[in-house]
Parts: sequence; structure tokens; C-alpha cells
Amino acid sequence: MGANSDDPPVDTEEAIMRATYRALCNHGYANLTMQAIADEFDKTKGVLHYHYDTKQDLLVSFLEYLLSAFQENIAVDGADPAERLEALIETLLFGPPERGRFDHWELTTAMLEIRSEAPHNEEFRRQLSRNHETVKATVVAIVEAGIEQGIFRDVDPEQVATLLLASINGARIYQVTLERDDVAEVTRSSLDAILEHWLYCPDELDSGSKADGNAGED
Amino acid sequence: MGANSDDPPVDTEEAIMRATYRALCNHGYANLTMQAIADEFDKTKGVLHYHYDTKQDLLVSFLEYLLSAFQENIAVDGADPAERLEALIETLLFGPPERGRFDHWELTTAMLEIRSEAPHNEEFRRQLSRNHETVKATVVAIVEAGIEQGIFRDVDPEQVATLLLASINGARIYQVTLERDDVAEVTRSSLDAILEHWLYCPDELDSGSKADGNAGED
Repeated sequence: MGANSDDPPVDTEEAIMRATYRALCNHGYANLTMQAIADEFDKTKGVLHYHYDTKQDLLVSFLEYLLSAFQENIAVDGADPAERLEALIETLLFGPPERGRFDHWELTTAMLEIRSEAPHNEEFRRQLSRNHETVKATVVAIVEAGIEQGIFRDVDPEQVATLLLASINGARIYQVTLERDDVAEVTRSSLDAILEHWLYCPDELDSGSKADGNAGED
Repeated sequence: MGANSDDPPVDTEEAIMRATYRALCNHGYANLTMQAIADEFDKTKGVLHYHYDTKQDLLVSFLEYLLSAFQENIAVDGADPAERLEALIETLLFGPPERGRFDHWELTTAMLEIRSEAPHNEEFRRQLSRNHETVKATVVAIVEAGIEQGIFRDVDPEQVATLLLASINGARIYQVTLERDDVAEVTRSSLDAILEHWLYCPDELDSGSKADGNAGED
């Protein structure tokens, strides 16, 4: 995500999503207008309205887009479950490796604003739920694979997935709303300790790091 | 918190805080006006303005008030560290036992809206940071006492506290922004499993439940 001048040409909807991404990072959700998105885009505001009736429709599509980007980038079938899990945690906490962390926290801030609308906005709630369930199912599948391969203990995959995602969600929100800036890092260390004591079978304390995705998990 | 007709008389500032609490639960943050607070209160809007210049000042004081209420209620010196920790988790996740859960999620929703302002609002960020640091220091002290008494393993108390608070924060926000309503419950079970495997020394798997507090940890 994030268009560079040497990226290959993209279709209009992809271009709108990239423009929305940049506009959200630059302006936040509260100041996000169709014009602000069009300004990040080489077409007119009319083109946005042709594709999306309202800003809400556009943002719901943007949440779907984040989920697709996440799914594309973590689809590493066959890789070691421990490595996949570590990469997923790293990416959810700090953003995909190829994206700057600055961008990541800007997007996290905008996502927090969108999330704070969700209790009063059924469409946002529904799409955030889809994103959450999909990401959780990914974690559950990785944990199940690890148990089957004898790498992970016989834990409850739903419990592991819920705890991981809740702590990552909470840590990212702390990171952008508190004065201290090490909450995500400390949470990363805590999750390492938890995986070691709760999840990994003894002598499975090895890990890697790869993957991508935001998935609206802010 | 929450005034009943048979509560003892309270001073004006306490009465304003209780009115703010009820107004936030009933209207949320977005629709919170000084008039809405005065309507929950047996005095006029003028009294509010006499005590607080702006709605922001009042809300910063409200965050302090939540922290004091939390501190009063979890101050159970001498109690068993495992019991204190379980009670604190239960209270942060689901609200103080004497308060209805409905209220708790309404307040969580309003607190999420306040938190989403924090990246752009230095006063909110500063007070949310104070609340976070104080609650975290409480968890750290409990964990340290448990280690000293040989009940807990020799873990890093800062890691434990950060992970607990981040997962509770994330779970509460999921609870009010997703369609499913069991995230807090599943997180509770996950935390039990973590405490068992990460924190408790073998044969220290006993617990209790008590205490109070919200502490702005939403």
C-alpha cells in the first residue's frame, strides 16, 4: 500500500483505496473529506462519487481493502507455524515491514477514530467484525497447525487468538493515545514470554519475521 | 459511583462527577453538553461553569475521578496477591461488581470516544497517561509482592502489567465495537490460562474476586 511513482498502473478502485489510505494518514478520519481523497488522486471528486455514494460506503470498502491486503501478504502456506505467528504479530503491531512506522501510527490513529464511531454505526461495526473474524480465523488456523505438528502445546486456539488480537489492539491504541511510546515494544516482549510459556512446546523457542497487513485490526 | 437516593449527601464536585458519569452513559461523549450534565444534577448549568471553565476541563477531572474511585476500591493491602490480581482483572474487564454491566459498556463506549480524541488533545493524553501509569504501577506492585512471597514466578512485572492492561483495553474496545459479545469473556479465560502458565508457581492456582474501578482504562 502507498503508491510510488514506479508502481505498475492500477485500476480506479485500487487507486481510490490508495488515495484514501494517504488521505487518512495525512488528515485523520475527522478531517477526511471526499475532496481530501480526490486531492491524493489524479482524478476528480466526481470519480469518487461515481464509485461510492457516501464517505461511509468508501470507508467500509477501505476496511475491506485493508483486510484483502492483509490476507494477500500473510498467505504463506506451508511455512512454519511459529514463524507465521511471529510474523503476524510483528505486522499487526508495527505494520508491514515495507511500510514506514510513521505511516502505521497515523493509520492507527485514523482507525481508532473510525472504531470509536462503530458503536453507533452498524456498517462500520459489521465490517470491523468481518475483519476481526477473518484475522482471528487466520490465527486459529496457525495455532491448530502448530498443535497438529507438535510444535505448540494442546491449547485452546480461540483463547490464544482472542488474547493476541485484544492485546495488539489495546497496545496500538495505547501507543497513539498515551505519552509514552514503548507500549507496543513492551507488549511485543510480553507476547514473546507468553508464547514461550503457554504455547510453545519445550525446545520450540525459535522464530522468524515476515508478512504484511493491517486488516482494520486497530 | 452512580448516586442512589439513599446515598449520603455529597459535595458539589462529587455531585458533578456523578452527573457527568450518568450523562456520559446516557448520551455518550459526542452528545455530551454542559446542559446534559446539568440535567442529571439538581443544580444549574451555571454551577458547572463556576467549577469548570470548559467541557474539556470537566472531562479531565472526570478521568481523575475515575482513577480515584479505582484506587479507593482496590486498596486491599495485605490481601493475597493472586486474589488482588484476579479481582483487578475482573473489575477492569467487567466493571466493579456493584455496578451493572450495562452501565459499564455504556461508559466504555464514551471512554473510547474520549480516547479517540487523545491523539489530537494533549490534556486528554496527559490524563489518560496518568491513569494508565497509576493502574500499571498497581499491577506491578501486586506482581512484585507475589514474586516476593513465592506465589508468582520471577517474571518481569512491567511485561505482565503492560500485557494485562493492553489486552483488557483491547478486549473492552472489541466488546463495544464488534457484533460478537463474548470477547471480554474469552479474554478473561485467556488471561486465566496465561496467569496459570506464565505467572503462578505450580500449586498456586487458587483465586478470589473483589474490588472496584474503571480508572479511565478504556
